[in-house]
Amino acid sequence: MADNNVVYVGNKEVMNYVLAVTTQFNEGSEEVVLKARGRAISRAVDTAEIVRNRFLPDVDIQDIVTGTEEIEGEEGETSNVSTISITLGK
Amino acid sequence: MADNNVVYVGNKEVMNYVLAVTTQFNEGSEEVVLKARGRAISRAVDTAEIVRNRFLPDVDIQDIVTGTEEIEGEEGETSNVSTISITLGK
Repeated sequence: MADNNVVYVGNKEVMNYVLAVTTQFNEGSEEVVLKARGRAISRAVDTAEIVRNRFLPDVDIQDIVTGTEEIEGEEGETSNVSTISITLGK
Repeated sequence: MADNNVVYVGNKEVMNYVLAVTTQFNEGSEEVVLKARGRAISRAVDTAEIVRNRFLPDVDIQDIVTGTEEIEGEEGETSNVSTISITLGK
């Protein structure tokens, strides 16, 4: 889920990601980036909002970047999926 | 769905919102703001990405702001929901 201050948001319960982010900040990170694709984008926004409203008031959203990635399906067909990258920092 | 250059993204098919945004730009708007809450946030990002990648290449994402709103349930209980506001502009 997390490597060198990036937390990938998938389909788990949102509090898993909130915990991952708060743990990284408590271990000394100055910046944590949340990354998500497709429907998990809403959960990434939830995570950012819960972290800064309820757990780490001194952390703020410093940047939000969206994009589009091409993904390959099981039969080799390609489709586009939206992505988001939310940078949280002190 | 749309009033004075704001498009509210809900649970309809994403192309409804893509059409609403492109129509506003074609009618002369310089800026259109996509607003969504909760799970529709992913669809708002999809809308922005489809508009700028496939329909209006000269339009770009100028700002993305997230927030939290308190909403009241049927029995009067309150809960928080994340919000997003995506500003598209030429």
